[in-house]
Amino acid sequence: MWTVNENTFDPSSQHHKETIFTIGNGYLSTRGAFEESYPGERRATFVHGVFDDVPVAVTELANAPDWLPLNIFLNGEKFSLVTGALHSFERSLDLRTGILTRRVRWTSPSGHTATLTFERFASLADQHLLCIRCLVLPEFDGQVEFRAALNGNTDNGGIVHWRWLGQGLHTLPNGEKAAHLLTRTRKSGLDLAMAMQLVTDSPLPVEFWDAESIPTLRLNLEARAGQPVSVTKMVGVASSRDTAEPVARALECVAVSSGWDQALEAQQQAWSQEWERSDVIIEGDDEAQLAVRFSLFQLLIAAPRHDNRVNIGAKALSGFGYHGHAFWDTEIFMLPLFTFTAPHIARNLLDYRYLMLDAARAKARQAGYQGAWFAWESADTGEEVTPVWVPDSRGKKRLVRVWTGDLAIHISADIAYAVYQYWRVTGDDDWMAGQGAELILETARFFASRAEWDASQEAYVYRDVIGPDEYHDRVNNNAYTNRLAQWDLTAAIQVAGWLRQNHPQKALALFDKLGLDDGQFAHWQSVADRIRLHVRPDGLIEQFDNFFSLVGVNLADYEPRNRSMQEVFGVEAANDYQVLKQPDVLVMQYLLRNEYSEEAIRANYDYYTPRTDHSHGSSLGPSFQALVACMVNKPEEAYEHFILAARADLRDVRGNAGDGVHAASAGGVWQAVVFGFCGLQVDETGWTVRPRLPRHWKRVTFRFFHRGQQQVVSVPDK
Amino acid sequence: MWTVNENTFDPSSQHHKETIFTIGNGYLSTRGAFEESYPGERRATFVHGVFDDVPVAVTELANAPDWLPLNIFLNGEKFSLVTGALHSFERSLDLRTGILTRRVRWTSPSGHTATLTFERFASLADQHLLCIRCLVLPEFDGQVEFRAALNGNTDNGGIVHWRWLGQGLHTLPNGEKAAHLLTRTRKSGLDLAMAMQLVTDSPLPVEFWDAESIPTLRLNLEARAGQPVSVTKMVGVASSRDTAEPVARALECVAVSSGWDQALEAQQQAWSQEWERSDVIIEGDDEAQLAVRFSLFQLLIAAPRHDNRVNIGAKALSGFGYHGHAFWDTEIFMLPLFTFTAPHIARNLLDYRYLMLDAARAKARQAGYQGAWFAWESADTGEEVTPVWVPDSRGKKRLVRVWTGDLAIHISADIAYAVYQYWRVTGDDDWMAGQGAELILETARFFASRAEWDASQEAYVYRDVIGPDEYHDRVNNNAYTNRLAQWDLTAAIQVAGWLRQNHPQKALALFDKLGLDDGQFAHWQSVADRIRLHVRPDGLIEQFDNFFSLVGVNLADYEPRNRSMQEVFGVEAANDYQVLKQPDVLVMQYLLRNEYSEEAIRANYDYYTPRTDHSHGSSLGPSFQALVACMVNKPEEAYEHFILAARADLRDVRGNAGDGVHAASAGGVWQAVVFGFCGLQVDETGWTVRPRLPRHWKRVTFRFFHRGQQQVVSVPDK
Repeated sequence: MWTVNENTFDPSSQHHKETIFTIGNGYLSTRGAFEESYPGERRATFVHGVFDDVPVAVTELANAPDWLPLNIFLNGEKFSLVTGALHSFERSLDLRTGILTRRVRWTSPSGHTATLTFERFASLADQHLLCIRCLVLPEFDGQVEFRAALNGNTDNGGIVHWRWLGQGLHTLPNGEKAAHLLTRTRKSGLDLAMAMQLVTDSPLPVEFWDAESIPTLRLNLEARAGQPVSVTKMVGVASSRDTAEPVARALECVAVSSGWDQALEAQQQAWSQEWERSDVIIEGDDEAQLAVRFSLFQLLIAAPRHDNRVNIGAKALSGFGYHGHAFWDTEIFMLPLFTFTAPHIARNLLDYRYLMLDAARAKARQAGYQGAWFAWESADTGEEVTPVWVPDSRGKKRLVRVWTGDLAIHISADIAYAVYQYWRVTGDDDWMAGQGAELILETARFFASRAEWDASQEAYVYRDVIGPDEYHDRVNNNAYTNRLAQWDLTAAIQVAGWLRQNHPQKALALFDKLGLDDGQFAHWQSVADRIRLHVRPDGLIEQFDNFFSLVGVNLADYEPRNRSMQEVFGVEAANDYQVLKQPDVLVMQYLLRNEYSEEAIRANYDYYTPRTDHSHGSSLGPSFQALVACMVNKPEEAYEHFILAARADLRDVRGNAGDGVHAASAGGVWQAVVFGFCGLQVDETGWTVRPRLPRHWKRVTFRFFHRGQQQVVSVPDK
Repeated sequence: MWTVNENTFDPSSQHHKETIFTIGNGYLSTRGAFEESYPGERRATFVHGVFDDVPVAVTELANAPDWLPLNIFLNGEKFSLVTGALHSFERSLDLRTGILTRRVRWTSPSGHTATLTFERFASLADQHLLCIRCLVLPEFDGQVEFRAALNGNTDNGGIVHWRWLGQGLHTLPNGEKAAHLLTRTRKSGLDLAMAMQLVTDSPLPVEFWDAESIPTLRLNLEARAGQPVSVTKMVGVASSRDTAEPVARALECVAVSSGWDQALEAQQQAWSQEWERSDVIIEGDDEAQLAVRFSLFQLLIAAPRHDNRVNIGAKALSGFGYHGHAFWDTEIFMLPLFTFTAPHIARNLLDYRYLMLDAARAKARQAGYQGAWFAWESADTGEEVTPVWVPDSRGKKRLVRVWTGDLAIHISADIAYAVYQYWRVTGDDDWMAGQGAELILETARFFASRAEWDASQEAYVYRDVIGPDEYHDRVNNNAYTNRLAQWDLTAAIQVAGWLRQNHPQKALALFDKLGLDDGQFAHWQSVADRIRLHVRPDGLIEQFDNFFSLVGVNLADYEPRNRSMQEVFGVEAANDYQVLKQPDVLVMQYLLRNEYSEEAIRANYDYYTPRTDHSHGSSLGPSFQALVACMVNKPEEAYEHFILAARADLRDVRGNAGDGVHAASAGGVWQAVVFGFCGLQVDETGWTVRPRLPRHWKRVTFRFFHRGQQQVVSVPDK
């Protein structure tokens, strides 16, 4: 189960298919649009960190110049699925190697037939290299023409980010010709260069069309029926984020490549190493098997291997949704995969937060707080890029205020949690001393300053926040937020002690820089001790103040439905009901699972599960719902939620996969298998498993690194 | 004084110069950007009626595909003002013929020198034809290459409106080759085609580069020092608004053209007819002379001659400002020029409002009123397209509510006024019976329904409105609004009577359609008789309820300043002061000048003039301030305001000419000369002048049509 396939061409699922046939290499990803284009496509390539701002929109990943164009002309007639007759269509993505293949047999309007095979990949061995090969098997005698272009005229749903800077033709050291295109983002001023070469066996010359912003290489070959002809388009890409000379770098990339076969071999080798680190084998459930590998693939192609100034957006690099912004989705949902299977990638992602510390400090300071308050949505600078107002679907004169950027303070604790988990699992003391400790201390400082003393309750409270359940905004004392804040304060005190003991010089310098002393730590402890948490004697935790007084709802009464309960009630009114967008208390209990008994978890599971909009609420919900179901020993119920998450992209169960993959759900799928069904528990000294597999699963084999040593685990034990 | 000139190239005035060197023909206009481009340019062509909407923005005129590209290569080196050495630069716009000429002597980086002369025009004789000629006089032996393109990759300040549909190469009936480009607006679905031909004496073949979205024709000529070479780029343009076959129409346009000389001759002839109708000669003031002709030119190139479904935007077709939307600027400021000198154009513009009547009825109905409430900002459908919220310069989280679309009801009366004036001046009874009467009756019906009876004042009041002075919003009983509403109601009763008497069948049908009867007319008269107007015994009119109680300001205290008084006070606070964005009462008195004595006007002139932000308020103010100054016999004071209006674009006195010309001001300049300084008064039976020229003006000669007969008037009388 390594391939995602389709055997028919259905334009109505175009955007969904573009998403799931995305290829990438951790430097960029390219959606599965066709080389020759198709009407209505959402064609896109996103390069990590290449953000741009425009006056009318938020900062977003700029849809990069398009490297895909490779048009085929059969006796002068342009190949297109819009015209002519399509006899067969197959597309498959090989997850094991990252190669996307499409095979089409087509007859042109005037009757020339050929089978066309397109293959493409973004090299994992050299992240600046992209390759397309097209093989044409004509069933006629005549001409087959290839036109390969780099197209600088791309946009993000109507927003144009690029300005043409220049282009040209070059002779490579080996005597071949290559063309380049250089563009610059309009506001952020980043330069992006692409270079291309058309590799062919033919002795015929490649013609160059120097048309502005779309340099084109053209090759016209003699076609004989039954004799295949092929070209390979090798593309190099580099930006001013990588090098001072992007054009030279892009050209060098195609110059040193020795064609398709060699690049393919390197690709296969690089991917084999990836899977060696991270593969999960599920025996007895082909759908789950493919879905888990697909989830891993999506995260692996979005994971920065050579850059610690970028993060992974909510849609990874696979679509326009959420503009490439990073959320808590990274730390809570995606990062564990990397922490456990690819710590070097986890470190890059955590480094990103470290590099954004000053922006987080500025955000806290501007709001009157201390420490580091990270942006709810984060892009290149770490400034808050959550949109403040969005248009209301009900009319142009109405705008809806988006509060998460102002109130979803739990993001700072989520980051601290991920830092601590990384440290605990990897034992990377150097990084903890150098970067991690500062992240934990600064976020704790924020929570200490954000807490308000409420004399009537004799407790520290966090008023006017939004927790993970975003159906309820502007609430007081969200349990997730308060409990994670408490955890952060406590962890900070512990880390401070560790640092003082093991790296006294660093501790001194850091405490001095941050203005920390024992008085501060004592105050933190005092805040942590008195943070308000409403826990009933039976262990049930109130999600926020007065949640128990809201209107109860029997969700079954609203079935069947195809929209969220927030849409059913309206954004404002949804606040009044006991309906959750995603489990809120349960996620907290999962994160702090060592601190809760199974009974305490079960009390909350039983209460909140029927009150959660599993099908149309947050896509983050089902995987974690499955995790918690495993924790309360309900693997079959867990599987129902798990499979909902597993199908989010492959089956487009939410109807929005066209906007990009559900990256948090993908990370949650891996966690559900490893921490849920297999029950992996890790601490400084070792690990245990506690399998609770669904009945039809025969065996699960997964891999992870514990303190630098790879562990390969099968459950049930072989 | 027929030419606008510059003799140096100054990149810092790039946008201003692009605006004032705009060419056009009433079908489209093209800003004066360079054929070869220049960094930072606001390159644009706007075609009347080609609006598009995008999710993130308001409906706007889409920057059309670019027909200008004509790149010159001297021995392979691209001509550009960014590189090489510039020895001389001249640019001039001949207002008499609409030809823009640029002559440059330039040396390429490696030392090849040539003089390049570019000429361009948009044909007034065939509005679908555009022409560029480039003549190169090389000072070297070698190659001169020409690359002409049509570029579909244009945008409106980062918003892309076009989708590529197709392109191709064609053989014209005369054996020449022409290339076409077909694009479609993304939301409104309008197709626009351009076709181009490269006309040259050379027997060498023109090469075609079929690069997507930028079809390019290429010609490489032998250069001999001292021997000029030239090409002409003939471009045809047509849209699906004009024809079902835009590509065929665009190709036909270049096919029937016989090259530069013939097109130029037709152009000169067409323009000579325009000036025959509308020229104004001012003896004794070269600056005023050029400014008046420039103002006329700007309105003439934006005036639709063959289309009654479009209007003229606040920036005409010369810039991105105000998105191509039409305001009251058309009826009150620009239309009189056309009504008096080109009634066929005035009728097209008024027809546009007639065609938008249903949209105006819908706007009134949706707000709970009857009749026709026209959109404050109007585009292709007549729906309200005023932005509702605009970003605040003070921070992304703040939005400013724009109220004009909700409250500036005077637009309906302004349109009725223009209809009535057109009728009175032209005597076009057919149009009045067929279209005009309905406009006047429906707007009157709106004002009757919008009026509220205030028992305490025993008057009909208009609460919560914005008058012409937009420093004060949400006011009650704005004098301009109330008085124009009163005028509209009275005029409607008169027009109803005229229609009943002269076109009884039409009257019956129309009254039946609109549900009008004598009871209605009696009610209208009753409303008109009791509309609240606060006129003091000395004739001073209060601009709106409680204006006299606002805080007085001595504007001299704020000099020198380079921003508006609204910016000085802030948008909210400006409401509290007696400072006007533009004369409000005075504009009303000018429009209804037969109903006020000179003394009554003087009382208001003396009061409001020192309270008006002439220099940084509305650009609509100075021309009308000049007019009223003439009415109170202060021609020298009038001239001070007049010259401020005259310089708005040519000298960019407000620093915003880069966004496009101040079209209302241009119309006001003509009115100031004709109705102000010359004192033209027209009624059904004839006309009079009452010259009050500034001392240094020797003589003014102007033309207009009175009931179909052209009048040529010189003052003082020869």
